[in-house]
Amino acid sequence: MANDPNLYFVEMQEPGYDAAADLSAIRGGDRKALARAITRVENELTGYRELLHLLTPETGVPVTGFTGPPGAGKSTLINALVRHLRKAGKTVAVIAVDPTSPFNYGSLLGDRLRMQEHFNDEAVFIRSIATRGSLGGLSEKVIELVDLMRCAGFDHIIVETVGVGQSEVEIAGLADTTVVVLVPEAGDEIQTLKSGIMEIADVFVVNKADREGAETFANNLRKLAAHPRPDGWEVPVVKTTANADVGVQEVVDAIERHHTSSSMNAKRPYLLAEKAFRLIRRERMRGLTKAQLKEALEKELHAPRFNLYQFADQWVRRIARNDN
Amino acid sequence: MANDPNLYFVEMQEPGYDAAADLSAIRGGDRKALARAITRVENELTGYRELLHLLTPETGVPVTGFTGPPGAGKSTLINALVRHLRKAGKTVAVIAVDPTSPFNYGSLLGDRLRMQEHFNDEAVFIRSIATRGSLGGLSEKVIELVDLMRCAGFDHIIVETVGVGQSEVEIAGLADTTVVVLVPEAGDEIQTLKSGIMEIADVFVVNKADREGAETFANNLRKLAAHPRPDGWEVPVVKTTANADVGVQEVVDAIERHHTSSSMNAKRPYLLAEKAFRLIRRERMRGLTKAQLKEALEKELHAPRFNLYQFADQWVRRIARNDN
Repeated sequence: MANDPNLYFVEMQEPGYDAAADLSAIRGGDRKALARAITRVENELTGYRELLHLLTPETGVPVTGFTGPPGAGKSTLINALVRHLRKAGKTVAVIAVDPTSPFNYGSLLGDRLRMQEHFNDEAVFIRSIATRGSLGGLSEKVIELVDLMRCAGFDHIIVETVGVGQSEVEIAGLADTTVVVLVPEAGDEIQTLKSGIMEIADVFVVNKADREGAETFANNLRKLAAHPRPDGWEVPVVKTTANADVGVQEVVDAIERHHTSSSMNAKRPYLLAEKAFRLIRRERMRGLTKAQLKEALEKELHAPRFNLYQFADQWVRRIARNDN
Repeated sequence: MANDPNLYFVEMQEPGYDAAADLSAIRGGDRKALARAITRVENELTGYRELLHLLTPETGVPVTGFTGPPGAGKSTLINALVRHLRKAGKTVAVIAVDPTSPFNYGSLLGDRLRMQEHFNDEAVFIRSIATRGSLGGLSEKVIELVDLMRCAGFDHIIVETVGVGQSEVEIAGLADTTVVVLVPEAGDEIQTLKSGIMEIADVFVVNKADREGAETFANNLRKLAAHPRPDGWEVPVVKTTANADVGVQEVVDAIERHHTSSSMNAKRPYLLAEKAFRLIRRERMRGLTKAQLKEALEKELHAPRFNLYQFADQWVRRIARNDN
């Protein structure tokens, strides 16, 4: 099964990997090659850097990120969305990101099960990404994997963040189009949410809109979003009841409208700078683990004049010496 | 007023700053000196590094971090807690941390107002810290400021995180004792919360315990927390109704019990390693801004073969050359 991340693990340790040939296969629509390449990049196996260095910007393959508080119904909405896209004959890749957050809302088997109806559909590619602390941050991995998926010719790439927190918002914010999914109950908090959420959302969805207060909440959001942004985009507010398939096509339309808007070009340098910053930071810290620091600390911390800032500065100098 | 962060800003630009003398004054209980030093470290003004390099571990000044979802009543609980500590004749410092999260729950004036009853109490030192993107991360700043406050001889130091998300959990998790505040309604999510939350919490508080389901929820938490951790600490679950002052003294007792437990020593190397990692990472990225990357990107990204990973690697090499 093309979606099994472990199936090709062993053979990928072998030498003689040809990144250019692999990329050709992925570009040609070979889903098994894509699945293997994802595993390669995710686990940093032979040739993964070479593969990434060969990627060129694939235009016309926009990425949509979904975020929002737990219980907002993101997975149900995405499931319905995929159904609509499939009906329109479009191919879709879904990358489901489990958070690194200590407030880990878990692997949420339930959410994965809800996607099951698409699992045997060849035109829908679904992949879950979990955190790998030892290989650096989750958001850096998602950047790489999404870029890889861009080459595979899907009509839509969806990044689904599971859970809540800064890492999820960051990851969804790295998409070309970011959809923030809320529920009417969020109304109380929207005034305080205002500043931050307006910056990240390209589309607002008020899901579970059959609940009380949905219309008022949606109207309040519309007031907040009433003025076009500096990039000319006016953030739409769409009411949905995803589990009854109400409003879902409007979400598809709003996303596709953003994909083809001038906002995409305006966002691009900011997104790339953010991505570059994260990739550089990961490289700058590569090889240094907390376990290593703990071992070094345990020898020093009982000194009467132990100072954390001197300790940290010593390591900064030590790593810098190894850079060249 | 000692708590005004801007009052001493101008004079602190002057040369000839004597960090050792300043630290002596702070150790001697000079609250204005502490307030100035916080501003110095927060804004990285003259001598802030020297000051940090002089800090030595202050034993007996434990730090308690509070985290939990918005609406859990953290501020109300902390306010009540401070009242109890004051009644027992103890001095308290509260550092309120606003998140860097794009989901910024804002400056939450309401929360600050709730602390107002303590603002004119000389034995209660309150300071808000907002994010300063340009000076590196928020959690690194909090590490420095808390260490500085440890020298000022408070009986308790409380780190209050405002909002929800990874950064808040991270910051609260850097405290010696971490209190996770929940409400009965969180019951539905607790199974999925289980793995992550058990690792960070030293004390659970079920606030708004006059609401339906509080007893069941608290009992479920107790079952999860029933087995002592490897460090020997059994995580207590305390029910409170903070706005009616119910259960607050039990929270104080639970915190003080953890402060004097062997768990504190067991946690210390892990906490220090985490802090060192963050401080090192900030230094490794110092001087590199996203704006700088964006400027460089704008010149290159229109090339037909532009590749983000090659771009990032070039910068990694360039920064490394400047290290030595």
